[in-house]
Amino acid sequence: MDMDKILLCGVDLGGTKLSIGLFSIDGNLIGKEIVYNHNDKNPDELIKIIADLIMVLLKKNNVTARHLSGIGVGLAGHILYRKGIVITTSNFSEVIRDYPFVRKLSAYFSDVKIVLDNDANAQAFDEYKYGAGKGYNSMVFMTVSTGIGAGIVLNGKLLRGRSGTAGEIGHSIIDVNSRIRCTCGNYGCLMSLSSGLFLPQLYLQKLDSGMESEINITKANINDFNGQLFKKGISEKDPVSLILLKETSDRIGVGIFNIFQFLNPEIVILGGGMMKLGNEYLKRIKTKFRSLTHEMMVEEMEIKLTKIGEDAGLLGAASLLLEEE
Amino acid sequence: MDMDKILLCGVDLGGTKLSIGLFSIDGNLIGKEIVYNHNDKNPDELIKIIADLIMVLLKKNNVTARHLSGIGVGLAGHILYRKGIVITTSNFSEVIRDYPFVRKLSAYFSDVKIVLDNDANAQAFDEYKYGAGKGYNSMVFMTVSTGIGAGIVLNGKLLRGRSGTAGEIGHSIIDVNSRIRCTCGNYGCLMSLSSGLFLPQLYLQKLDSGMESEINITKANINDFNGQLFKKGISEKDPVSLILLKETSDRIGVGIFNIFQFLNPEIVILGGGMMKLGNEYLKRIKTKFRSLTHEMMVEEMEIKLTKIGEDAGLLGAASLLLEEE
Repeated sequence: MDMDKILLCGVDLGGTKLSIGLFSIDGNLIGKEIVYNHNDKNPDELIKIIADLIMVLLKKNNVTARHLSGIGVGLAGHILYRKGIVITTSNFSEVIRDYPFVRKLSAYFSDVKIVLDNDANAQAFDEYKYGAGKGYNSMVFMTVSTGIGAGIVLNGKLLRGRSGTAGEIGHSIIDVNSRIRCTCGNYGCLMSLSSGLFLPQLYLQKLDSGMESEINITKANINDFNGQLFKKGISEKDPVSLILLKETSDRIGVGIFNIFQFLNPEIVILGGGMMKLGNEYLKRIKTKFRSLTHEMMVEEMEIKLTKIGEDAGLLGAASLLLEEE
Repeated sequence: MDMDKILLCGVDLGGTKLSIGLFSIDGNLIGKEIVYNHNDKNPDELIKIIADLIMVLLKKNNVTARHLSGIGVGLAGHILYRKGIVITTSNFSEVIRDYPFVRKLSAYFSDVKIVLDNDANAQAFDEYKYGAGKGYNSMVFMTVSTGIGAGIVLNGKLLRGRSGTAGEIGHSIIDVNSRIRCTCGNYGCLMSLSSGLFLPQLYLQKLDSGMESEINITKANINDFNGQLFKKGISEKDPVSLILLKETSDRIGVGIFNIFQFLNPEIVILGGGMMKLGNEYLKRIKTKFRSLTHEMMVEEMEIKLTKIGEDAGLLGAASLLLEEE
């Protein structure tokens, strides 16, 4: 057996977490590395961190780059897929723009195929191949995490659009009068009203309106309010957390309703860290969605949670290498 | 030459206007009938009006149903395409729900193929085949008229989604806090904030906020405020009309921006009566769209006006008969 090119390397470059995984061709995880210290790095530094981690991972598993079938990278942002360029991403401290990601990473792995796509596209394809989307002709995967992204799979193919940025539903606008500005530059996009990155601002709005925190969140420590504290606030019945639970789930419900109106898919699959807020969150999302469809939905659109679990982003990135050209 | 089935019949059933046209297979208009008195009829009465008009049109042109290749019907609303059923439409005084349109019309034309689709889908396909969308791999046609609808053509095929309601972008929500309720039952959808049907309510909001009309629109005659008066108000610099011009064009710009985020198509084509408001309206739509894209659009998405002209809806409905199965 030829030992060359028997492994897939997946890189999941999120705003909070950078994970790198080594998989067999049939999708079994062989090893992974995770770091959380990359958010404030500039793009060239990010590339170096990724390259170093891949080399550590290869070494730990007694293989070399020669054994890689390729490196698939999933990144939260607008990606010019066919050129391997990051158009812009707003999940890092420093906004990355017009950055030749694939070319830069190739400098470290000269003979290895490298594919870059939106992380949500990667996870969507993954979900379609192996997860909750298996067997459906039209599905949308939406990840509610630090940011909000989505991937659209129609008849077995990712819908990428002209430049590869189709499915950037997180930046679609659902509140034209919103005063919360997203890192994308606009006000009122879905992401700015319901993603993890904006939890501090959303909490602050409630404090400013006179509500009181019962989990000791103040203006001074507002930036500590993350998904974990949100979950704690919900379980301890903190009134601010409870109203944010209602409002953020309502907005995700609106986002899913807009997916229904645009695409009328068979199923929407939800993933991302925010989905760990619990059953009440998912239930409210579904209820809001259903309350908006009235008589417009004649055949039920399913809403399900991701089946892939914690390695979704990683396996998704790796699975990009298996997509037919 | 076999004289059977050499003609296409197109039916454009809008909220304001019902047109029926007879076309040669290559798309040349042979004759048409238009009525405006159908809006307050119930569905069975509507079917009878349509059937009668088709028969009048056939007779005028010295042909019979035997000469028809089929009847294509475009209707503003949610359509269960493969079953020929109107799920719901909100452009008529009486909301139509779960109505077997094709079966009912077939009672009058027993051996004629009848196809029913959303009017925006019909026009989108038309535009792709013969109009401004010719040669593009991914296009969205949006009609801004009594209501707002859209049709999505990807790789030469209409994207219909599971039940055939994909592209109902007019009912996607862009203002979660809006107080204007659409006929669809929701608040803040694109249609309720910028379509012809809602011009009176939008004008009324401005009067209620203390603005004064300079074209003699009052609460008493508010329902007269239609597209024609809107155009007059703009040309006479009526302050209410001017602010509505700004706001409605901004919202259409947001709608197009959401199309960009969802689908990243090569081109968006605009049609419908509201586009006759003039160049300033289109210019503002484009400016708003462009102001929202920031660094997210690396390859320009074109925005063009329909090329098909006044028979767009009719020819679109007829062209449905030519779509490959």
